[in-house]
Amino acid sequence: MKVLVLGGDGYLGWPTAMHLSEQGHQVTAVDNYLRRNLSRDENVEALYPTPDLVERAAIWKQHTGKDIGVRIGNLCDWDFLAGVFAEAGPECVIHYAEQPSAPYSMLNRETATLTLQNNLNATANVIFAVKEFCPTAHIIKLGTMGEYGTPNIDIEEGWLDIEHNGRKERFLYPRAAGSLYHTTKVQDTDLLWFYVRTWGLCITDLMQGPVYGIHTDESRHSESLLPFFNYDELFGTVLNRFIVQAVVGYPLTVYGKGGQTRGYLNIRDTLQCVRLALENPAAQGELRIMNQFTETLSVNDLAELVRDAGTATGLDVRIKPVENPRKELEEHYYNPRHSKFSELGLQPTLLTREILVEMLETVSRYADNIDTGKILGKNATWAK
Amino acid sequence: MKVLVLGGDGYLGWPTAMHLSEQGHQVTAVDNYLRRNLSRDENVEALYPTPDLVERAAIWKQHTGKDIGVRIGNLCDWDFLAGVFAEAGPECVIHYAEQPSAPYSMLNRETATLTLQNNLNATANVIFAVKEFCPTAHIIKLGTMGEYGTPNIDIEEGWLDIEHNGRKERFLYPRAAGSLYHTTKVQDTDLLWFYVRTWGLCITDLMQGPVYGIHTDESRHSESLLPFFNYDELFGTVLNRFIVQAVVGYPLTVYGKGGQTRGYLNIRDTLQCVRLALENPAAQGELRIMNQFTETLSVNDLAELVRDAGTATGLDVRIKPVENPRKELEEHYYNPRHSKFSELGLQPTLLTREILVEMLETVSRYADNIDTGKILGKNATWAK
Repeated sequence: MKVLVLGGDGYLGWPTAMHLSEQGHQVTAVDNYLRRNLSRDENVEALYPTPDLVERAAIWKQHTGKDIGVRIGNLCDWDFLAGVFAEAGPECVIHYAEQPSAPYSMLNRETATLTLQNNLNATANVIFAVKEFCPTAHIIKLGTMGEYGTPNIDIEEGWLDIEHNGRKERFLYPRAAGSLYHTTKVQDTDLLWFYVRTWGLCITDLMQGPVYGIHTDESRHSESLLPFFNYDELFGTVLNRFIVQAVVGYPLTVYGKGGQTRGYLNIRDTLQCVRLALENPAAQGELRIMNQFTETLSVNDLAELVRDAGTATGLDVRIKPVENPRKELEEHYYNPRHSKFSELGLQPTLLTREILVEMLETVSRYADNIDTGKILGKNATWAK
Repeated sequence: MKVLVLGGDGYLGWPTAMHLSEQGHQVTAVDNYLRRNLSRDENVEALYPTPDLVERAAIWKQHTGKDIGVRIGNLCDWDFLAGVFAEAGPECVIHYAEQPSAPYSMLNRETATLTLQNNLNATANVIFAVKEFCPTAHIIKLGTMGEYGTPNIDIEEGWLDIEHNGRKERFLYPRAAGSLYHTTKVQDTDLLWFYVRTWGLCITDLMQGPVYGIHTDESRHSESLLPFFNYDELFGTVLNRFIVQAVVGYPLTVYGKGGQTRGYLNIRDTLQCVRLALENPAAQGELRIMNQFTETLSVNDLAELVRDAGTATGLDVRIKPVENPRKELEEHYYNPRHSKFSELGLQPTLLTREILVEMLETVSRYADNIDTGKILGKNATWAK
């Protein structure tokens, strides 16, 4: 199948491009290096250097003989986007191309404006390009479980049947996100849902939880094929931060009570989910929403798991609660469904000691690169 | 009170500016003439010429001795907006400043992009400016009843209490708008709700139905003070179209079955509602949402009312169903609440024969200006 991977340089975009290329699809990866540039500008670069998209496509070709097409440009620039669509003639468009950091979106007015404009305009342009160039193509859009927030009722998969004063209606599940970044994903969903109803597009919107891990089947050829590993307050995730803290002998800093619970998944399962969505497309005129995670864990759970794995590898790991720099509930109900991908055949890779030990060992090899000043950073007060 | 009226040149903005000036408030009206320029570009100008904002403020001053400050510029331009806020020091910000036409937002990719960028960036900038310059100021934001769409259950005022699997939560009432313009208002609400939770802003979001009428107490001084009257497919409303059709002897063209039902209000009641909201502000940290209309009417109801009033003034008015150019339900359940403004003391002006006769007489005086080619126009297929 002809597949466009928008945001193909990203943490998920590049592994997805390799995975679909490996599966025999004709992949074109598109990126404008926004995330690379922002993390350089903010002085929070990844743990190890990552070759750029053109270089990685060449390394991939060298090891596998397979081509991944590369186009560098901005999806907010219609002329560029139209050229890419006209040339690639995609049957499936995987849209990861957004400013992906919640803390970055909350730094100041400029970063908020960049996030809002970039994410909304990119999504609108993707919709317009599909309508114009390939109206039956399947759009697989990366949303986030963060769109739902942490409501006091069960989180369904995208939709909620409501009975009110004796009458019934099915609505988009009401959303209440915790950052501007997450709010732009809610606004993306509004836009997708409107144009599905108006133009009958075919869209899968993935409500994905936080992803961990860097190794995938396709990265075995070379460490140069690994995606970004950020451990800073802006582009890192809590698990990456804990891994780095364990390696350098810092306490694992738990924000507040540590009861913040989310649905996590391994990067291998992201690839599996996207492939399952691609192989089992939504119907024409359907906005299919699937919750994409494999297990719910609290921050305290994560800290305990890292301590356990660290101890197994001979590290002395301590856990230290600190004041929470974010505006979020530290204890809350959290019961999201995630049965649709199981029904499509997802085989989950859970967060075992073995997986964590592999992550600790990889990070240890790059221990000399760790800048401990970046772990919490000057931006820890982002949501105040 | 120091009041900014953003979009102060508009159909509602200018009458609001006069009304609050009359009430003794210190009003600054801000506009970039976007709507004026778009209707000129699309060749669908209003029924009679309307002096620009600077001229109207001078006419107002001449008749009343009162000053309305005028600033011409674009709210999407931060430097301009920051200057306005720094100078005006508003205690209340009334935000009408958006591309206001649903059909225009659906014409093509360029008009969709303009609507999305203009409306979202203006709203975001207003939020950022209030946070930076006047964090306790009351934002009164014009939303639309169209955010809700036409669900099969009762429409509450902004929020919905949901019981699900034995647990309870209060959510923003789920929204499903019928045009891109209306969808940008949904996205505005997402943004307002996020920043109310994050920064504790004080916001009233008005879910307003279609407004009719041009005469207000303040326009009695001079017809030059009347707001725009558009009767075209892009910037007109169904009632204006019917009035013009009745005056020129065309049949009133009812789209499809004519059961499309909405909550309408007289422009005098818009002014009353905005004043009531201003005098009874939301609490700090509250997103107060109020449904702003006085009566629900179907398109068939409107056609019958115009026929009745037309007959009373000696016109021969026929009604003619035509194929619906819009994608919308032509028969549907519609039961929206609207008790909050009644509780604040709203005295409704309903759509009586007398009101319609006054509109017919005003339009008749400008009958020579009517361009019948504009009534339905080349754009009647906008939602196909």
